[in-house]
Amino acid sequence: MERFAENPLIIPDDVSPTRDDFEVIGTFNPGAFVADGRIGLLVRVAERPIAEDEAVVRVPVAAAGEGERRIELLTFERSDPSWDFSDARAIVPREGGPGACRYLTSLSHLRLAWSDDGRRFQWADTAVRPTGELERFGIEDARVTQIDGQYRITYSAISDWGICVGLISTVDFLRFARHGCILPHENKDVCLFPERVGGDYVALHRPSSDFCRPGMWIARSPDLNHWGGHRFLAAPRPGEWDSERIGAGPAPIRTPDGWLAVYHGAGDDGYGLGLMLLDGDDPSTVLARSDRPIMTPEADYERSGFFENVVFSNGWVARPDGELWLYYGGADRCTAGCRCSVDELLDELG
Amino acid sequence: MERFAENPLIIPDDVSPTRDDFEVIGTFNPGAFVADGRIGLLVRVAERPIAEDEAVVRVPVAAAGEGERRIELLTFERSDPSWDFSDARAIVPREGGPGACRYLTSLSHLRLAWSDDGRRFQWADTAVRPTGELERFGIEDARVTQIDGQYRITYSAISDWGICVGLISTVDFLRFARHGCILPHENKDVCLFPERVGGDYVALHRPSSDFCRPGMWIARSPDLNHWGGHRFLAAPRPGEWDSERIGAGPAPIRTPDGWLAVYHGAGDDGYGLGLMLLDGDDPSTVLARSDRPIMTPEADYERSGFFENVVFSNGWVARPDGELWLYYGGADRCTAGCRCSVDELLDELG
Repeated sequence: MERFAENPLIIPDDVSPTRDDFEVIGTFNPGAFVADGRIGLLVRVAERPIAEDEAVVRVPVAAAGEGERRIELLTFERSDPSWDFSDARAIVPREGGPGACRYLTSLSHLRLAWSDDGRRFQWADTAVRPTGELERFGIEDARVTQIDGQYRITYSAISDWGICVGLISTVDFLRFARHGCILPHENKDVCLFPERVGGDYVALHRPSSDFCRPGMWIARSPDLNHWGGHRFLAAPRPGEWDSERIGAGPAPIRTPDGWLAVYHGAGDDGYGLGLMLLDGDDPSTVLARSDRPIMTPEADYERSGFFENVVFSNGWVARPDGELWLYYGGADRCTAGCRCSVDELLDELG
Repeated sequence: MERFAENPLIIPDDVSPTRDDFEVIGTFNPGAFVADGRIGLLVRVAERPIAEDEAVVRVPVAAAGEGERRIELLTFERSDPSWDFSDARAIVPREGGPGACRYLTSLSHLRLAWSDDGRRFQWADTAVRPTGELERFGIEDARVTQIDGQYRITYSAISDWGICVGLISTVDFLRFARHGCILPHENKDVCLFPERVGGDYVALHRPSSDFCRPGMWIARSPDLNHWGGHRFLAAPRPGEWDSERIGAGPAPIRTPDGWLAVYHGAGDDGYGLGLMLLDGDDPSTVLARSDRPIMTPEADYERSGFFENVVFSNGWVARPDGELWLYYGGADRCTAGCRCSVDELLDELG
């Protein structure tokens, strides 16, 4: 993987916050696609109220049913023993506490940026904002797949009830059709295959359970809105770099050898990227999986940011001549890119 | 709710274990249905190896792909600090332990019993046994709904990966068609509505999340195999009898006032049963919910057993004249029954 010399490509200072009293703390984990010869990124923009008083944490929540930009602020006293503030990303009820849900300290929406060269991006006016009860805590980590002439966007919808998967479709990135929750809680990291396989649409997804460390699953659908036939695909590997959790990256790419998929894995050394090759006719069969990560956090913008030591990809685009440009989030803060080729990745899989 | 004088109707001693070295510890949480004028119960039968050595726990696991009755035994030393044995139902990895999944101490399958009077049940030869990788730790808590001339069985499928929802269909309870996993982990307590509503099949389900206490959701399907349009239905109520978790009971019954649904709730006093009335045309709208439980553990066979203070229902049948016979599990050990009427339940909902 050859990092772009221009990295990081997008940083929080590049975008205006939704409100004057907010700060953007992350512009990362973009979905990627090609439209009219340009590269589009659907970037996760994370914001929070500018801290005025160290003794309190103000939590931004998207108010339901009152217009997309309406945001409500909840106030938590840091001295309140009911809540655990030790994780900068969340406020978690303590044992014996209020028994309520956890809250996120930032609120994410998706914003569109275009580029002609894949390096320099310009913001469009388009933003996709959290809407409705299932998105009160924000929407995150979009995957964009072109299927049957439409762009299909899967994303994490976060609320009092946890994390579920939403689906939005668009043909022009101006008007968006919302298809609601396609996979219930606790699920995320969903990518759609770009074409039907064996007559069905196919998705990779990542359910969570009390029983085991989170792994990757595959599901089938007649219409993209309703999913079933869930099957296990791959698990974290104890003792390896991806020992704690794994989840799908962007839409797999069809190659002569099978479906080439990149995934993220987390272990003792943070989040890296790995590869899988799935059977072309039956993608529930894993033909190969890379032993070592194809990318680990090395650059400054990958090692430090909002959450350190993370490279996380949910977007790539295929270029002429088998080249791939992979876009990724660095340290839950910035967007970066790198190049590789389909052949190099297939070689890595032996 | 008027308990049957014959309670408990089925106890573990009534059924032979799968193997001579096993003991049946539960015959409970039956799905219920009517076929050819008889009442059928699809009873959860929980078994475990007879303990021979107090120093070890032997865990029964259904071996995948080697015939339905093949069971593998895993052995755990009680002195092993990697595991927590404090919950009689499960063996849970300790923090810093092996990082593996949790195990169940018993293995459940489903066995069929018939009755002419709804009180005295005779075992049939039919058993539905765990099959395949998603059912290694057993299958539990079937709901049976007659739809379009077929019986549809939803159940909890338990494995290394947690709890997901399986679907089986049958017309005669002799041959069964398996439709795989219809809702991924972590999910359970799924009941299907007996007819399409607004053109779609409808289900209630119960996802789990780190964010909040488990509640009830509703989903729609074009074909019963693929599900989407997930919407929140109802949550546990802090400070009430159903403060900790709630989940659907058997298939809702259509009444002139709407869909009548019974649900289970757990709180400080164990598991009880409550009622909801859902809109007839849009069952994602809760028209009414009972303030108080319609049933709480009172009888000996409800207060003590394998897990104390539980009444849990996933089966009822409608009788002539608006009478309902509700079958339920007592203390995770026995099957019991009670009678009530649709009118009485609607009155309870005020």
